[in-house]
Amino acid sequence: MKNKRFLGIELKPNRLESLSDGVLAIAMTLLVIELSVPMLLKINAEEQLKIKLFEMWPKFAAYGLSFLILGIFWFFHHFLFHYIKRSDGRFVWLNILFLMFVALIPFSTALIGEYSIYARLAVMFYGANGFIIMLMLNMMWWYATKNRRLVDKDIREKDIKNVQIRFLLSALLALIAIGLSFINSRFGIAIYIIIVVWAIIEILITIPYYKKTTE
Amino acid sequence: MKNKRFLGIELKPNRLESLSDGVLAIAMTLLVIELSVPMLLKINAEEQLKIKLFEMWPKFAAYGLSFLILGIFWFFHHFLFHYIKRSDGRFVWLNILFLMFVALIPFSTALIGEYSIYARLAVMFYGANGFIIMLMLNMMWWYATKNRRLVDKDIREKDIKNVQIRFLLSALLALIAIGLSFINSRFGIAIYIIIVVWAIIEILITIPYYKKTTE
Amino acid sequence: MKNKRFLGIELKPNRLESLSDGVLAIAMTLLVIELSVPMLLKINAEEQLKIKLFEMWPKFAAYGLSFLILGIFWFFHHFLFHYIKRSDGRFVWLNILFLMFVALIPFSTALIGEYSIYARLAVMFYGANGFIIMLMLNMMWWYATKNRRLVDKDIREKDIKNVQIRFLLSALLALIAIGLSFINSRFGIAIYIIIVVWAIIEILITIPYYKKTTE
Amino acid sequence: MKNKRFLGIELKPNRLESLSDGVLAIAMTLLVIELSVPMLLKINAEEQLKIKLFEMWPKFAAYGLSFLILGIFWFFHHFLFHYIKRSDGRFVWLNILFLMFVALIPFSTALIGEYSIYARLAVMFYGANGFIIMLMLNMMWWYATKNRRLVDKDIREKDIKNVQIRFLLSALLALIAIGLSFINSRFGIAIYIIIVVWAIIEILITIPYYKKTTE
Repeated sequence: MKNKRFLGIELKPNRLESLSDGVLAIAMTLLVIELSVPMLLKINAEEQLKIKLFEMWPKFAAYGLSFLILGIFWFFHHFLFHYIKRSDGRFVWLNILFLMFVALIPFSTALIGEYSIYARLAVMFYGANGFIIMLMLNMMWWYATKNRRLVDKDIREKDIKNVQIRFLLSALLALIAIGLSFINSRFGIAIYIIIVVWAIIEILITIPYYKKTTE
Repeated sequence: MKNKRFLGIELKPNRLESLSDGVLAIAMTLLVIELSVPMLLKINAEEQLKIKLFEMWPKFAAYGLSFLILGIFWFFHHFLFHYIKRSDGRFVWLNILFLMFVALIPFSTALIGEYSIYARLAVMFYGANGFIIMLMLNMMWWYATKNRRLVDKDIREKDIKNVQIRFLLSALLALIAIGLSFINSRFGIAIYIIIVVWAIIEILITIPYYKKTTE
Repeated sequence: MKNKRFLGIELKPNRLESLSDGVLAIAMTLLVIELSVPMLLKINAEEQLKIKLFEMWPKFAAYGLSFLILGIFWFFHHFLFHYIKRSDGRFVWLNILFLMFVALIPFSTALIGEYSIYARLAVMFYGANGFIIMLMLNMMWWYATKNRRLVDKDIREKDIKNVQIRFLLSALLALIAIGLSFINSRFGIAIYIIIVVWAIIEILITIPYYKKTTE
Repeated sequence: MKNKRFLGIELKPNRLESLSDGVLAIAMTLLVIELSVPMLLKINAEEQLKIKLFEMWPKFAAYGLSFLILGIFWFFHHFLFHYIKRSDGRFVWLNILFLMFVALIPFSTALIGEYSIYARLAVMFYGANGFIIMLMLNMMWWYATKNRRLVDKDIREKDIKNVQIRFLLSALLALIAIGLSFINSRFGIAIYIIIVVWAIIEILITIPYYKKTTE
């Protein structure tokens, strides 16, 4: 009780949101650092640049993939915080752990951009990174909704379950990607692409705002 | 319907704005990373530094050009969001794609800073980057204003058209720049400079706030 | 009096908060830059990558440690600002000095990631960095609460003291870590780990929000 | 008139503030990138690290100097925006030019950190960078206060003048620093240190908030 009064200040979720937006935005933008400009000889630079840029395609693909995956994480985080009305120390630390693995994505991206074809370990590392991030989101959601601890008291049980299923499925897909990478790194990569396409399609289908307004 | 209730939360445009501001601010500031300090011998460093800094002029020019172009994109984005009253999943993803190509600008800038004179491909790559960004802004505007989906219901048809024309013109100019770069990279560069000067002049001419207050 | 009227504008603490959130978020995310992708030969890349990633463990550990320590600083800063109602020039400068040493953490982290085993000076440098940051937080708290200068007038003396003790203890622990590093760098590292674990456990124990709601 | 209606949206100063805070925070934090960890041989690493860290002192000094100078710019910007009630296109572009030179500071800092003793040109470049930033702040203030265009209508003429004098003096000092660097780079550096110390002292003296509350 004493402790609660002492440290029991109401943590505003909005500053946690702004820290998270910061880390997500920086992680997204830092992806570009891995795209280093190729060294060319001044003679016949045109032809060389064409070849070098073309050879860089796995790096461009990794950049695009990670940017969209970070976009999905941002979207999920945004979505989760839509329901959060309060915050506490434990929730803050789950969120910081979430950010710790989000900020690691530029490194994992550099790994697959460089070695996806040569080493399945790179693809598995990338998958593990994504899996832990989804795990954190699952834990955040579980912690916040347990006894409606940090969410709106009026939230429907069905809505809680629906978000949970979606987060669990995403985590599961990451696990499957790691497993398939063990067999062949190309399978792992394929799963990541499927995750992105699936997530985006689902978002596009299920949240058309204008339907709401034309009902 | 079930889905709509489930995921049909009202996405607040302001968090999308703050993510975008973050990515734009970071992309602007990361431009400086390409300006690496020249290596000098300690003997006669003064003279060497003068020569090296002078030789770096294409990099300084690329820095200035890209900073101003990112400024224009920020301004356009700010301008567009002025009218946005709601958001939905599709709009969010158009915006994330917009940011994905904004975050690529430091790489494109490094390309032209290094090879603009030697390889028109560098200049075309830069133009393509700018063109896709403008394309995304066009699509965001088109999507948001279609049936006044995400904008104020009272917005005048003429205002919608005016913004559309402005965005289409900017995209068109980027296309022309790519085309001219095919002939000679200097032409492409010239177009980018013209775009910046034109955009800034237009902004300076058309939005003098004080006129409003002295009417 | 004249000066006070002239420059005596009320500085809003919220913009100082947003600058601080920015610097903290960037410092956290920049930690990843020290994790450079290992160079591999294309032949037998799988095996090499396994070895190289394993050899990188001190860097991963340093990344995790610093990310969590920055999380603690963010939490402390957030906590301190919870009580701040006003700001002034002196408080702003204490805060900027705080940020100056926060922004140095990626460098200190790189030092221990690279040389923690080989040079206790690296571990002491890291400790000194943390100590100065805690010193700044102590000074900010002391300055803000002195005569309830910048805090709520109704804050209880006991609450002020409690926060003070907590901040002083954290600074003291950093000092002890520096001292022990002098004997053996492993001792210093151990203390940092203890600080993190202790701080997180304490936060987890003392601020369970839901208790408040179930009383 | 037509144009004004068309593009005459009221630009909210707060989004310009948040972009500026972003660029300032990133520029501050990017300063650390110039502090690269020295390469050591594993044998006798302790002794080597001591020597290398000591040799790095001009870089640490440059880091501290630039961080504080960016702090001053942030403070000035914050101070200026305290009076801004509206914004327009011209003001936005002055602010973006201000940010363009703020974002260049990490490069200028790297220059003086590396070559301040060997080449006065480095010190002059740094001074010129600071001078242009102060010039932009002067222009922003002049533009905003001219006919009380963007500021509070009730602002006193004396307050406008006082801020103007302060900004002009800071710009003048930067010019003097450039001039003295021409004679000897050490003189230039001395001026920058004086500017920082003077600015901080002045801020500390003139804005003690608590005086206001104890009157």
